[in-house]
Amino acid sequence: MQKEKLIAGHSRIKPYIHNTPVLSSSMINHLVGAEVFFKCENFQRGGAYKMRGATNAILQLTEEQRSRGVVTHSSGNFAQAVSLGAQSLGVTAHIVMPSSSPEVKKKGVIAYQGFIYECEPTLEARESTANKIAQETGATPLHPSNDPDVIIGQGTAAMELLQNHTDLETIFCPVGGGGLIAGSALAAHYFGKNCKVYGGEPFEADDAYRSLQSGKIEGNKTTNTIADGLKTTLGDNNFPIIKEHVNGIIRVTEEEIVSSMRLIWERMKIIVEPSSAVALAALLRDKSQFKGQKVGIVISGGNVDLGNLPF
Amino acid sequence: MQKEKLIAGHSRIKPYIHNTPVLSSSMINHLVGAEVFFKCENFQRGGAYKMRGATNAILQLTEEQRSRGVVTHSSGNFAQAVSLGAQSLGVTAHIVMPSSSPEVKKKGVIAYQGFIYECEPTLEARESTANKIAQETGATPLHPSNDPDVIIGQGTAAMELLQNHTDLETIFCPVGGGGLIAGSALAAHYFGKNCKVYGGEPFEADDAYRSLQSGKIEGNKTTNTIADGLKTTLGDNNFPIIKEHVNGIIRVTEEEIVSSMRLIWERMKIIVEPSSAVALAALLRDKSQFKGQKVGIVISGGNVDLGNLPF
Repeated sequence: MQKEKLIAGHSRIKPYIHNTPVLSSSMINHLVGAEVFFKCENFQRGGAYKMRGATNAILQLTEEQRSRGVVTHSSGNFAQAVSLGAQSLGVTAHIVMPSSSPEVKKKGVIAYQGFIYECEPTLEARESTANKIAQETGATPLHPSNDPDVIIGQGTAAMELLQNHTDLETIFCPVGGGGLIAGSALAAHYFGKNCKVYGGEPFEADDAYRSLQSGKIEGNKTTNTIADGLKTTLGDNNFPIIKEHVNGIIRVTEEEIVSSMRLIWERMKIIVEPSSAVALAALLRDKSQFKGQKVGIVISGGNVDLGNLPF
Repeated sequence: MQKEKLIAGHSRIKPYIHNTPVLSSSMINHLVGAEVFFKCENFQRGGAYKMRGATNAILQLTEEQRSRGVVTHSSGNFAQAVSLGAQSLGVTAHIVMPSSSPEVKKKGVIAYQGFIYECEPTLEARESTANKIAQETGATPLHPSNDPDVIIGQGTAAMELLQNHTDLETIFCPVGGGGLIAGSALAAHYFGKNCKVYGGEPFEADDAYRSLQSGKIEGNKTTNTIADGLKTTLGDNNFPIIKEHVNGIIRVTEEEIVSSMRLIWERMKIIVEPSSAVALAALLRDKSQFKGQKVGIVISGGNVDLGNLPF
């Protein structure tokens, strides 16, 4: 069922997304001691993989639903993705953004003609503001990481990666709200050959690590991380998938995130956001476990504020 | 003759270089009013197109010459390229670098096991230091932009671009010492279909613009530009090629260089150095002249000092 949904989802969104390139670096391979394949969703439309899930969800709304618009809350990448996806399909996008969102992500939403509603940078404020807009406008709420159609859409990045590299032994993703890793885990399960899936998560926002340990969804105790896309928590749709199909979560320090980000920028000459660097940081931290393997990494996005870099 | 040299040079260096990807951005196309294809030599080994020319030159040395090493002077990218090319072939590389070279480029040379000799940041000091080393060690001098084999090697980037995009109407390159634009102009002449070639040059180092006007090689009056790769002047081997085959040089301000660099970083999510951004800045400055065309841009390199960015 999920397999068919992935196949149908990929066909559905294909005309609206890029099949992004897969890059590698011999220097990084040498450093990791493995063959690493980076699926570059920083080159995706809107600058992040989120375009996949947003488009898959919007394309399944009825004409009547589309006429009333969509509403979401996001610190940035899903906001841009919904705005861009909605714009392509002539749908109005109402976007709730925490006031702490990077300037470049707000600009992106405006460029794609989404309407921004700023709120306090807490999950409660984000959800209540989005609910209020949904009630007032009749817009359909799209959850950035827990909507089943969004999860399927996000999984299409790992699907494409496995189409080109059928023998990957492990795939790494960053873990924020859980949509990307749940979708990637489904893709690895149905399209990989015993392909394992690991998540990278900041120590400073380690809800997924603790949720897997306790067996129930845990909140974040802190969200004091540079990886601004990973401050959210798992949801009731993605957590069961993660419990079933994800092999482990590896936590990393802020220093490891910044040095992995710098490594990717300097050696691969591509711009990735801190959240993306978390996946490589996790692989580097436990590299002995993956020695000699073929490893895929989903580079989640490249929307950074150039005026506010950690270097 | 030059056509055969390009074909032979490309076959010769092929095993040692990447056939770099060609990227584009619908947002930049929209801004320029043309279809722009970026040949991404920032993804080349060593982080710049210079690897092509260096490898082509070193591969043509005799065994006896190789045993005595090579020597060059370069503000950075050619230094890394010669070090890396020489290292692959078991040759010693002596590299004269002006003391003003970016830290990241010095590190690159050291990583590739080249020997660095620092000198004053003037062309005179660079040349006299390199000559002295050549005399003392018997190393073969490689000129970064005027050596005929280097010029041919640099032309292979535009050759590859034209292999994938046969109908380009114009190619833009940055102009420093003239090796890249001379090689690209030969490639466009022999492998393009009436493909024009334009150079981008900073107002602050506009020797090529003035040389084409006066008909003889002019020096730089200032080199106060962020485009650290473009401070050198044309040579007696590349200037005749440039005079014959280059259609024009468009000069740009420092502000235009930084804003074009930022545009590429933000929209394309790739890291390019200021010298590379000069080519897009030139196209943007005179965009009405190229409206509706298919335009190639050779992105020369991506070796920037992340600790010293202009944003």
